[in-house]
Amino acid sequence: MSNPVVIDTVPGAPYADLSREFDAPVEAVFRAHTDPDLFAQWIGPRGLRTTITHWDARSGGGWAFEQQVGDGEAFGFRGTFHTVEPNELIIQTFEYLGAPGEVSLEKLRFESLPGGRSRLVSRSVMTSVEALEEMIAQGMQQGVEEGYQKLDELLQQDG
Amino acid sequence: MSNPVVIDTVPGAPYADLSREFDAPVEAVFRAHTDPDLFAQWIGPRGLRTTITHWDARSGGGWAFEQQVGDGEAFGFRGTFHTVEPNELIIQTFEYLGAPGEVSLEKLRFESLPGGRSRLVSRSVMTSVEALEEMIAQGMQQGVEEGYQKLDELLQQDG
Repeated sequence: MSNPVVIDTVPGAPYADLSREFDAPVEAVFRAHTDPDLFAQWIGPRGLRTTITHWDARSGGGWAFEQQVGDGEAFGFRGTFHTVEPNELIIQTFEYLGAPGEVSLEKLRFESLPGGRSRLVSRSVMTSVEALEEMIAQGMQQGVEEGYQKLDELLQQDG
Repeated sequence: MSNPVVIDTVPGAPYADLSREFDAPVEAVFRAHTDPDLFAQWIGPRGLRTTITHWDARSGGGWAFEQQVGDGEAFGFRGTFHTVEPNELIIQTFEYLGAPGEVSLEKLRFESLPGGRSRLVSRSVMTSVEALEEMIAQGMQQGVEEGYQKLDELLQQDG
């Protein structure tokens, strides 16, 4: 059994809160969010190939990637890194280019736990409740769960 | 009498909606948001001197400025430009460095009106209701109203 993903929403509020523990130190989990070669190996649901097209993981930098199933259509995503504080905090924007203009703001806190473990706590805020509901309806939970399971596997290879 | 600023909030939701008309074409209002020399002349309440310290008004770029009363303490602000679509849309992050980590996401739509007039419609989303309430308590409305009155004066000089 992998560590569970807990996603909380509040009716009428345009944000989703997420919490996930990892059996790996906070430094390794943070690195998997800022190193583009590592990030491409775990982000999103299984069965997609991720290609990073832009990556500058510093406060004020930006990022972009595409995801593709086999030879199918590529789906684009892009955003900015507002804040990158090593092993502690990432604040970034996120946009799926299939729904242009529906940008979210994501605040990810990285917490160290005893025994070389760690916890990621994040809040994703959309600019409307409808946009959040659409993101959840599109299978956000499954994509997040499968992504973090791939991250678990990647962190075990490291160790 | 200047054009009124309308600010709407919804109890329990972490965003504020703002609407303001201008007696100037949308191109001029947009330019005053992306040209750093113009922006520095109107942003914020009266009595402050604004110094732009970083400015790259393109999708994926960033910005930073400081504001100071006389020889007093300088207050810093910074963010990223997620989207800049000329004369239509700006999506940006915003952080007051006196409250680090309390980042908002701002979506500004520029609309053309008949008779060479225009309307700016924006939504500012914070990562918590408490952060929004704090921003309003800090005098958001007065700062916005005085800033747009200065922008009116600047747009009249242009015309």
